[in-house]
Amino acid sequence: MPPAHTKACSRIAIVGVGQVGGAAAYALILSGVASELLLVDVKIELRDAQVRDLSDVAYGIGGGTRVRAATHSEAAQCDIVVITAGSKYFLGETSIQHMHRNIGVMRSVMGSMTSFRPDAIILVVANPVDLLTTLVQELCRLPKFQVFGTGTFLDSVRLRGLLAEKTGVRPSSIQLSVIGVHGDTQVAAWSSATINGVPIDQFLPPEQCNHADLANECKHISEDIFRAKGATPFGIGSVVASICTSILLDKGDVQPISHFQSEHRCCFSLPVVLGRKGIMRTVQLPLSSDEKAHLARSAERLKETLERIKHH
Amino acid sequence: MPPAHTKACSRIAIVGVGQVGGAAAYALILSGVASELLLVDVKIELRDAQVRDLSDVAYGIGGGTRVRAATHSEAAQCDIVVITAGSKYFLGETSIQHMHRNIGVMRSVMGSMTSFRPDAIILVVANPVDLLTTLVQELCRLPKFQVFGTGTFLDSVRLRGLLAEKTGVRPSSIQLSVIGVHGDTQVAAWSSATINGVPIDQFLPPEQCNHADLANECKHISEDIFRAKGATPFGIGSVVASICTSILLDKGDVQPISHFQSEHRCCFSLPVVLGRKGIMRTVQLPLSSDEKAHLARSAERLKETLERIKHH
Amino acid sequence: MPPAHTKACSRIAIVGVGQVGGAAAYALILSGVASELLLVDVKIELRDAQVRDLSDVAYGIGGGTRVRAATHSEAAQCDIVVITAGSKYFLGETSIQHMHRNIGVMRSVMGSMTSFRPDAIILVVANPVDLLTTLVQELCRLPKFQVFGTGTFLDSVRLRGLLAEKTGVRPSSIQLSVIGVHGDTQVAAWSSATINGVPIDQFLPPEQCNHADLANECKHISEDIFRAKGATPFGIGSVVASICTSILLDKGDVQPISHFQSEHRCCFSLPVVLGRKGIMRTVQLPLSSDEKAHLARSAERLKETLERIKHH
Amino acid sequence: MPPAHTKACSRIAIVGVGQVGGAAAYALILSGVASELLLVDVKIELRDAQVRDLSDVAYGIGGGTRVRAATHSEAAQCDIVVITAGSKYFLGETSIQHMHRNIGVMRSVMGSMTSFRPDAIILVVANPVDLLTTLVQELCRLPKFQVFGTGTFLDSVRLRGLLAEKTGVRPSSIQLSVIGVHGDTQVAAWSSATINGVPIDQFLPPEQCNHADLANECKHISEDIFRAKGATPFGIGSVVASICTSILLDKGDVQPISHFQSEHRCCFSLPVVLGRKGIMRTVQLPLSSDEKAHLARSAERLKETLERIKHH
Repeated sequence: MPPAHTKACSRIAIVGVGQVGGAAAYALILSGVASELLLVDVKIELRDAQVRDLSDVAYGIGGGTRVRAATHSEAAQCDIVVITAGSKYFLGETSIQHMHRNIGVMRSVMGSMTSFRPDAIILVVANPVDLLTTLVQELCRLPKFQVFGTGTFLDSVRLRGLLAEKTGVRPSSIQLSVIGVHGDTQVAAWSSATINGVPIDQFLPPEQCNHADLANECKHISEDIFRAKGATPFGIGSVVASICTSILLDKGDVQPISHFQSEHRCCFSLPVVLGRKGIMRTVQLPLSSDEKAHLARSAERLKETLERIKHH
Repeated sequence: MPPAHTKACSRIAIVGVGQVGGAAAYALILSGVASELLLVDVKIELRDAQVRDLSDVAYGIGGGTRVRAATHSEAAQCDIVVITAGSKYFLGETSIQHMHRNIGVMRSVMGSMTSFRPDAIILVVANPVDLLTTLVQELCRLPKFQVFGTGTFLDSVRLRGLLAEKTGVRPSSIQLSVIGVHGDTQVAAWSSATINGVPIDQFLPPEQCNHADLANECKHISEDIFRAKGATPFGIGSVVASICTSILLDKGDVQPISHFQSEHRCCFSLPVVLGRKGIMRTVQLPLSSDEKAHLARSAERLKETLERIKHH
Repeated sequence: MPPAHTKACSRIAIVGVGQVGGAAAYALILSGVASELLLVDVKIELRDAQVRDLSDVAYGIGGGTRVRAATHSEAAQCDIVVITAGSKYFLGETSIQHMHRNIGVMRSVMGSMTSFRPDAIILVVANPVDLLTTLVQELCRLPKFQVFGTGTFLDSVRLRGLLAEKTGVRPSSIQLSVIGVHGDTQVAAWSSATINGVPIDQFLPPEQCNHADLANECKHISEDIFRAKGATPFGIGSVVASICTSILLDKGDVQPISHFQSEHRCCFSLPVVLGRKGIMRTVQLPLSSDEKAHLARSAERLKETLERIKHH
Repeated sequence: MPPAHTKACSRIAIVGVGQVGGAAAYALILSGVASELLLVDVKIELRDAQVRDLSDVAYGIGGGTRVRAATHSEAAQCDIVVITAGSKYFLGETSIQHMHRNIGVMRSVMGSMTSFRPDAIILVVANPVDLLTTLVQELCRLPKFQVFGTGTFLDSVRLRGLLAEKTGVRPSSIQLSVIGVHGDTQVAAWSSATINGVPIDQFLPPEQCNHADLANECKHISEDIFRAKGATPFGIGSVVASICTSILLDKGDVQPISHFQSEHRCCFSLPVVLGRKGIMRTVQLPLSSDEKAHLARSAERLKETLERIKHH
């Protein structure tokens, strides 16, 4: 008979297993895409409770995923390291306070993972996602195509979902990306929106679909959910699972993801091709000059904030 | 072109969309088993926030499940009505207080769903699950094989999971049920436990596996999880999704489920065959006389509690 | 306990269970999308052997699909009726002979299914698919959006697959349809091809990708496969399963499908939105004037053939 | 951007891509379990046609499996090497002739795969499967737990399927194995048959279920299918896919598989636990003395045949 321990085929670490990390882990177990899921958190009791609760899911579906508690060092040796630490909001916290808290969280997390596997992929989930992704890229010293953030992926999923309800077309047959710096200044790239390649205006007359209204509705959904239940775990959890699946199965999926923009020297979202090695290539969206100017301005502001942080 | 509205193939209502209801809905959407998922809650804002958060999941995976808010009356017309209302525990609440609160919740929920579709299936999730299931059976007037509770399903999943880790055999190849009244008096039916039909003691010598310890560990996992994170949503959420899938796909799955025991005039868990019409048949476990006496005693106690409640 | 027989949730009939019908059934069972699969064939022994061989698949995966032999009349009462009868080619048979044989087959099949369920959907698979689909529409008297043919769906899958290999982008992120009359005169709609909404030439410079060569390669793949193994079951089998899944799960998938073109009074392929009721709406591709003229000419030729057949 | 070529996570080779190999490959692609599928055959044209036909399936579902033609040497470097070569029967061929042909085929195949990856797993599919598996074990020099044959897996699936139809219980909740030397002398192990751990006679009275008749029906299904369609690809194809999935996902599935019986010095089927390293452990079925004597006799006959072959 063979020796007892078996070589795991693919391992994902989730660093930070509060509501968002938990929901991401839940979806990953149900999908069965990874052999092993390592849960990491400075709150040891929470971490162990998540391991137990999520192990029940793994037992129940009889899939091949093993769930276990792990240290930050073990996480750094996984195929994918998902960092959701800091994804929780606190009532009354301003976004500046949230940012400063999360910069601290991220520095501490990265300090605990000193030596990454050279081909590890890091996915940053907490906000402000573009700023934190830029920061993590500097701290981890991995190739830039291996380090990225969820960015405007969820915003894009939502906007396509809203359009899907208006048109009866499934979201995956709608090509429309929200791009730029996630948050107030993000941009819905209507100028390149298509339904299965057909320009959206030919499919859905603009008078039946107010672009600005839809993009605005989409921008405020997270706040609405947060106000009512104090967290928005499911949407982002399934986005994390979807990104991990695209990577592990080397799918060549095209999605907007926060990644390094060499022209702007910081990270924000534009569509990329996702595969086993991370970002396999970028996709040049044909943007209008308005859209381009808007992106440049938000990048500028993001860089100013980054500068200010470094001088602290 | 066809008229705009399409006839849904299968609809599940989730009544009570807190953490447990939310986790059940999340797993159901990811599985794609239902065409439509109706979320019902007296807390309108929470309900609508769950609809939004969970719709993002449905959009993202491009599956066929539509998520929407609904009333109790609409829920009563679904294929399956999952009642998770009352599944939340409150810190400091005694189990007697929890019971009385939940009896109130259940009477109120059932009062809002006066006329069920004649072939609707009701699944009760909140605790004390056997008592509440018995109560719901009396209130809803549906055939008894259409009304049941999660009972000791999750306990069985856990115990098989613990054994799976000891043996390297997948949980679904382990036949072992936790039966009886869910909670302190539940029974692990070791006398009929097998690994793929082979009596467990022949596979795993009893000295390598202390039955009482394992059963005891399994009994306290929920408490441990609850203490650390205030809820145990994932395990029970995936069990609910698994039961709904067995029903909608008419799988003939065999699992312990809380259902009416005509000999005892109340509900508790014994294995049944689950299918499109609910409980298709019961499975007679070959129990030891000890196990039988134990079941009878807990049933007796449950009936006494039921009597007391009725005289209030 | 409930009565023994359960109401099936969704039923698909496959009329003609040679290699193509068998491969379609195999993929449908593995996907678990239908509750019941009815196999129909005038060759009773072949039919029963397929039922046995395919039942083994259903048993093995423990999915919810039941496979059984059925008559043409039973088939006409299913949610979807897939007609693969006539999809086999015989060595040495000219395409004219093949057409005349299949017209006979189709008339005979339709003669055996006199009264369809009013909301039944018919999918025609055999060649010449556009001519046979037009014929079946006339014979079955169902609404035209419920009757369609596989058309250029497989050709489109192939062309996207060839492009996926050149670009590393997954096929489902490539929007490119082969349209028109399936066969020699079909058209790859390069003018509207995009990668996730980005015009293809911006993503893949035309000098790296000779459009005409690719379209031509794609056109001859079936012949190559047929020459070597006498049938091309797997590709078309999975396309049939994919169409049935889109319909039963009401996915709103956008794909080129052979359907009635009111302007041309015959069937050929253009992209449509597929859902629970069949063709939910058509998608207007922005075609070049060359492409339009080409389509019109092939439609003209198809109608001439149809006229000739009617006068026989 | 990362270098173009990506490291495949799991690779399966199928050596012999006639009807059985093709059906196995088809199911494997639809399951998406492997990153790469290598098709190998001495008939180059058939192999390339299968690559094309099966690539269409991979393109269509957009899964992560790449299909490509390969040499025997490349096959020997895969995670799993499925040998279906010789699984075709020819009309009029006696079973002795078939055996001698296949011994030749297997020697030739093994001669082309001289140096295996040390942790490669070999799955033998052709008949007489126990004899050929024993032979391949001697030729390949890999550890014996890495080399096994489909044996009576399909027979067991069938017998459980027939019982599932009689009981309404899903096949995976039925524990019943066909064991021994696949073919005329195989044994249905009724003495240890259970439904979810409950002895079968308590669930289904023997007068409602003639054991000998069922086992006999099961034994002749392949012949019936073969007579009508000249091959039995689907059942065995899905069994091969299921075994490969159990291995790659390290599932710990328990199934009867033809493997080396040290007591008998040859291969036949008894239940084992399947995992990432092959056969993780064996399961001791509690057999009646009749059943044991029967197994010993067939093993004796198998060894005599093996001796005779070696002296040729």
